Amino acid sequence: MTRFALTIEFDGGPFFGLQRQKDGPSVQQSLEEAIHGVTGEEVRVHAAGRTDAGVHALGMRVHADIAKEIAPFRLMEAINAHLRPDPIVVIACETVDDDWHARFSCVERSYLYRILNRRARPTLDRGRVWHVATELDAAAMHEAAQSLVGRHDFTTFRSVHCQSDSPVKTLDRLDVERHGNEVHIHAAARSFLHHQVRSMVGCLSLVGKGQWTAQDLRHALEARDRQALGLNAPPEGLYFVEAAYP
Amino acid sequence: MTRFALTIEFDGGPFFGLQRQKDGPSVQQSLEEAIHGVTGEEVRVHAAGRTDAGVHALGMRVHADIAKEIAPFRLMEAINAHLRPDPIVVIACETVDDDWHARFSCVERSYLYRILNRRARPTLDRGRVWHVATELDAAAMHEAAQSLVGRHDFTTFRSVHCQSDSPVKTLDRLDVERHGNEVHIHAAARSFLHHQVRSMVGCLSLVGKGQWTAQDLRHALEARDRQALGLNAPPEGLYFVEAAYP
Repeated sequence: MTRFALTIEFDGGPFFGLQRQKDGPSVQQSLEEAIHGVTGEEVRVHAAGRTDAGVHALGMRVHADIAKEIAPFRLMEAINAHLRPDPIVVIACETVDDDWHARFSCVERSYLYRILNRRARPTLDRGRVWHVATELDAAAMHEAAQSLVGRHDFTTFRSVHCQSDSPVKTLDRLDVERHGNEVHIHAAARSFLHHQVRSMVGCLSLVGKGQWTAQDLRHALEARDRQALGLNAPPEGLYFVEAAYP
Repeated sequence: MTRFALTIEFDGGPFFGLQRQKDGPSVQQSLEEAIHGVTGEEVRVHAAGRTDAGVHALGMRVHADIAKEIAPFRLMEAINAHLRPDPIVVIACETVDDDWHARFSCVERSYLYRILNRRARPTLDRGRVWHVATELDAAAMHEAAQSLVGRHDFTTFRSVHCQSDSPVKTLDRLDVERHGNEVHIHAAARSFLHHQVRSMVGCLSLVGKGQWTAQDLRHALEARDRQALGLNAPPEGLYFVEAAYP
């Protein structure tokens, strides 16, 4: 058995999420079937993160144990051929030690959230951005966001379906930048609660519109109560960017 | 009658091109029907350029004469409501003088061509880039491209369906830049021949692969013969970026 680490890019639009679901298509199922097509083996894929339906990935890391002797580049090309026409591809592939784990060895996950901030709805980027027609003050959003950075109880920003043992997480980075008519939010942490990035982005959008002050955001965090959440941003603007390992 | 100048963004994928066609959907038809929906008027839309089927626009300029009294912002919002769900939007709207013409007053058109240069096919950007799996030498492409800049007979890079009076055009800019795993080609000129940008990009890709030298590209230009064309790049990587006016 050789453990392979794969870097995956996918359009989350057609999937019910990364993790295998009983009732619809998933990235995990497509990947496992593609690997089966290449190797004939029943392989279980483990991913660095569990993205929701509609959430995209630019560089998700996964691993799988494969008995067939095959070079990483050949494996990548063969899996990509089997993944057609699903919007999932392997963009990098390497062998790793048997104790390397895509999920448990990961020390930092980073996400990007893209907001299209203009009057007109998206055309080329539909399904790729959250459209917010009201002008957002990105500088105010960035300033307010800094109160969320650090170690906090993020219960307010946590889905009721979250399976994490503790609502306490350490947020390493939450930066808001304007690029023309797009507002980008960069978030990084060792791990996130379910819906945490989308919930933080939703509340930051209220700050950007002037409906919330920076203090309102701090109070929402301190409330440690899902009822204090202002807004959960939709999945289509969210991208899993990178998983980092020691 | 008031003449309105509109800036348009569209995904060219579902259309047979910008110009009205007998046998399929066009951007012009969608726009004229949307304006009819707002004003009740039979309006003719004139555009800065005629893009082919599958070619996108980030900032196409068009004009239309409208009798109804309406403020530019309201007109933009109303047309956008009527354009749904077509992937076309008006991103700017202003009134102009009666002698201003989207096509004839335009002094420079600029295009962007996006190549995704990696082994794996595109997922999030499918239909938005040309996928070239072989590694391209963008610096060699840029250097070779400079022989096309200036006033030349571009017959080699001209479609047999081109309706231009003369094959002589002045190319102001042809820059090739690498951005990670994308290669971007920026082209600007007062006007282009039909298929000129795609034909130049196709030949530059041969230079990038090392199949053509810079001298081969110069010889192709000097041949003034469509038979000397190396390759016509596909439409999905091409974007009409901007039309400039005095």
